[in-house]
Amino acid sequence: MSKKLSTQSYKGVRDFYPEDMAVQQYLFDIWARTAESFGFQRYDASVLEPAELYRAKGAENEEMVTEQTYTFTDRGDREVTLRPEMTPTVARMIAGRAKELAWPVRWYSIPNLFRYERAQRGRLREHWQLNCDIFGTEDIATDVEIIALAYQIFMNFGASDEMFTIHVNDRQLMHQLYTSLGLTDEQIAALTRLNDRRDKMAVDAYRLELDGITGDETISEEVVMLLDKSDDQTDVVVGLAELGITNVVFDKSLARGFDYYTGTIFEFKDTAPENKRSLLGGGRYDNLTTLFGGDPVPGVGFGFGDVSLRDFLETHDLLPQPITSPTVIVAPMGTEHNLSAQQIAQVLRTSGVSVAVDSSSRKVGKKLSVAADTLSTYAVVVGEDEIARNEYTLKNLVDHSTTTGTLEDLVAFLVGHD
Amino acid sequence: MSKKLSTQSYKGVRDFYPEDMAVQQYLFDIWARTAESFGFQRYDASVLEPAELYRAKGAENEEMVTEQTYTFTDRGDREVTLRPEMTPTVARMIAGRAKELAWPVRWYSIPNLFRYERAQRGRLREHWQLNCDIFGTEDIATDVEIIALAYQIFMNFGASDEMFTIHVNDRQLMHQLYTSLGLTDEQIAALTRLNDRRDKMAVDAYRLELDGITGDETISEEVVMLLDKSDDQTDVVVGLAELGITNVVFDKSLARGFDYYTGTIFEFKDTAPENKRSLLGGGRYDNLTTLFGGDPVPGVGFGFGDVSLRDFLETHDLLPQPITSPTVIVAPMGTEHNLSAQQIAQVLRTSGVSVAVDSSSRKVGKKLSVAADTLSTYAVVVGEDEIARNEYTLKNLVDHSTTTGTLEDLVAFLVGHD
Repeated sequence: MSKKLSTQSYKGVRDFYPEDMAVQQYLFDIWARTAESFGFQRYDASVLEPAELYRAKGAENEEMVTEQTYTFTDRGDREVTLRPEMTPTVARMIAGRAKELAWPVRWYSIPNLFRYERAQRGRLREHWQLNCDIFGTEDIATDVEIIALAYQIFMNFGASDEMFTIHVNDRQLMHQLYTSLGLTDEQIAALTRLNDRRDKMAVDAYRLELDGITGDETISEEVVMLLDKSDDQTDVVVGLAELGITNVVFDKSLARGFDYYTGTIFEFKDTAPENKRSLLGGGRYDNLTTLFGGDPVPGVGFGFGDVSLRDFLETHDLLPQPITSPTVIVAPMGTEHNLSAQQIAQVLRTSGVSVAVDSSSRKVGKKLSVAADTLSTYAVVVGEDEIARNEYTLKNLVDHSTTTGTLEDLVAFLVGHD
Repeated sequence: MSKKLSTQSYKGVRDFYPEDMAVQQYLFDIWARTAESFGFQRYDASVLEPAELYRAKGAENEEMVTEQTYTFTDRGDREVTLRPEMTPTVARMIAGRAKELAWPVRWYSIPNLFRYERAQRGRLREHWQLNCDIFGTEDIATDVEIIALAYQIFMNFGASDEMFTIHVNDRQLMHQLYTSLGLTDEQIAALTRLNDRRDKMAVDAYRLELDGITGDETISEEVVMLLDKSDDQTDVVVGLAELGITNVVFDKSLARGFDYYTGTIFEFKDTAPENKRSLLGGGRYDNLTTLFGGDPVPGVGFGFGDVSLRDFLETHDLLPQPITSPTVIVAPMGTEHNLSAQQIAQVLRTSGVSVAVDSSSRKVGKKLSVAADTLSTYAVVVGEDEIARNEYTLKNLVDHSTTTGTLEDLVAFLVGHD
C-alpha cells in the first residue's frame, strides 16, 4: 500500500484513451466494411499460440522465436508464444478444416500482434493488423482481386492514386531470372533477403554483400541491371489495369521478407517523401498448410498495420477530426433531480441518439460548459419547472439553437437528426 | 519439416471460425451499441500489464498473481502479466489523467482477459468481457444508471424480465449490520469471502466455516437470520423501480468476490434452473485510484463475460440463426472470364451489398450449389453471351426468383434489397 503504483502502461504498448480509441475504431470499421464488401468473412483466434507453430520452418525461425517474440513456458510445461503475425494461425485454422470448407474461402481478421523489440529503439511491441486472405484457388484473378481489395481500402479512406504506388513482383519469375544467371537456390534465398533491405542500404554496402553472395563481380553487375530494368509486365499488372487500377509498377527489386511466398508479391508504398516506406504487403503462398499434413491449399493475402495506416492518413491529412456522434447531456438543476433525469434520458434514448446524465453536484451552468467542452451536441436542463410542466428545452451546443416541447417532441426532433 | 504440426489451438483458448465469429460480433455489436446509447465512450489498452499492477494490494493478491495469472519475466527483467481483469487497468488510466478528465466520465471496453486454470477442468483460459464504468460521482443515481444500462443490454438481446433477476446489496450496510453483531473488520472480510461461495456450498459445510469465523454459534445463527431476511429496501432498488425495472431483489446474502467494492454491489442471475448462475456482476469502488497517488476518484461499474452471455442466450433461445448479411456470388462460366467477373463485382459493390467472385475451375452449376450451401443470397453467372449483350441475370438462391438487366439495373435492384 505504501509505494505508489505507476500509471504508465507496460513498455512499448499503447493505452487507448477514448480520443485515440475513436481513431482506432474508425480504422477498424473501414477495414471491416471494405473486406466485407468483397465477401470476406471475419475470423479470429487467441493471441496465445503453441510456440512450435513458429518453429516449424527450421533454424532461422528458431532464432526468430527465441529472440524476437514473447515466448514463455506455462505451468503445464507448454511453450506458448504471443502471436507475432497472423499467417501461421490462419494456415493452422484452414488446415484444421480443409476437408469441410467450401473453396474458395475469403477470410479477414484484425488481430493484435506482438514482437519483442529492444526497448531503446522506441518501436512498438504490439500493433494491430488487418489480414485478408483468399484460399483454395491459384487463379491469377485472385491475385488481382486481393490487390484490388487493398486498393479499395485506400479509396474508402479518401486517398487518391497519386498518394501511393503499388509495387508488384513475382517470386517465380525472379527465380527463373536468377537461375539463368547461374545462381543456386541458396544464393537466391540469400539474395532475396538482401534485396528486402536494399532500400535502407547505401549502394556500396549493398554491393559488398551482393558480391559476398554471388562470389563474382560480373554476376553482381548483371543482378543490379536486372533489378533496375522495368521493361517487363505481368498478368497481375495487366489485370489491375483492366479494373482501372493504374498506380502500379512492376518492380523486380521488390523482395518481401517472408520465406513462404511462392508467386506474386506486392507492397503499397507512400509517395510522400517524408513517409517513404511500405504501407502494406502481401503475396501468394501455396504451400503453407502442408506443414500440418494433408494436401497443399493455395493462398494469397496481405497484412496492413494500424501504425502504418495512421501515419499515412496523418501525412495526407485524411483523418476526420473530431470523430464523434451526436450526444445529449441531461443536466439536472440539482442532485435531487438525478433520478428524474435518468427517466428522461431513458425516454430520449428511444430516438437512437446517445444520452448521458451529468449526476455531479456541479452548478447547471458548469454542467453545460463541460458538455460543450467534451463535444456533446445537445443538452437538456431538468428542474422543478420542467418536470411540473412536462416541457423541456433541447439546447444545441454547437449552433446554440433550441427546441422546446414534451419529451416525445424532443424524441421526434432527435430522430430526424440522428 | 518432417514432424506434422498440430492444427489445435493452445489449450483452453478458442479459435473463432467465421460462424463463431459472427456470433461473437453480434454480442460485441449489441454491447457497444447499448453502452454508446448511454453516452459511454470506448477505450482499450494492451493485454500486457506490469505485474505489479495486480500485486499492489498485499499478500492475497500476490498468491493470485503467482498462481492464477499468466505472469512472466521479459528479457529486460520486467515482470509482465496478461490482464486477468480490466478494473486495475481502467483505474490506472483514470489515475493517469485525473487532472485533465471532465467528470463524470463514462467508459466502456470489450477486452479479452486471461486466467491460468489447471487444464483438466475444461474451463477457458481466455474470455472477452464488456466492462462499463462511471467515474467521478458518488451520487446514488449513478449506481441506478449503471444497473439500468446492464438491464437495457439484456432487453436489446431480446430478453424479458422473467428470464433473469437483479440481486442488489450494499457493502457499507452489511458492514454496519455485521459490526452491530460484534464482528471485527477481519471477521467481516472473511465472512464476505465465505458468503461469495455460499450458493455452491452445502448448508452444513457453510455453517462449519461460519462458526470458524465467528467463533460463536449464537452469532452464526444471527448472521444466517440476517442474510435470509429480505425486509429492507435500498435507494438503488427504489430508483430502479422508478425507471420501471422491477425484476430486482434486495439480497443481503450477495457478497461478490473482489475486495475493492465499497458500496452498492449487484449481480444478474439467470432464472432458468439449468443455467442458475451469475451472468454479470459489479459494484461501487471509491478508492481504487488512490493506489496511484492523488485524490480518490469514485467509480461504479460492471463486467459481463461473453461465455456467460452466450450460455444465457442459448438457454433462452435468443440467438438469431443464421447471422448473415446478403452476399452476391459472381460465377464465371470458365476461368477465362475471371477478370471480367472481377470488373462486374466491382460495379455491383457500388450497391453496398457484399460481392465475391468464385474464381475456381469448378463447373458453373457446382459454383451455384456451393454458393447456396454457404448461405449466399444471390448469384450472377458470367459467360460470353452475358458479356456480349451486357445483360446479366441475378438469381435469388433463397426463393429462386430472377432479375435480368444491365449491371446498372442490378445495382438499382440490390440497393433496394440491402
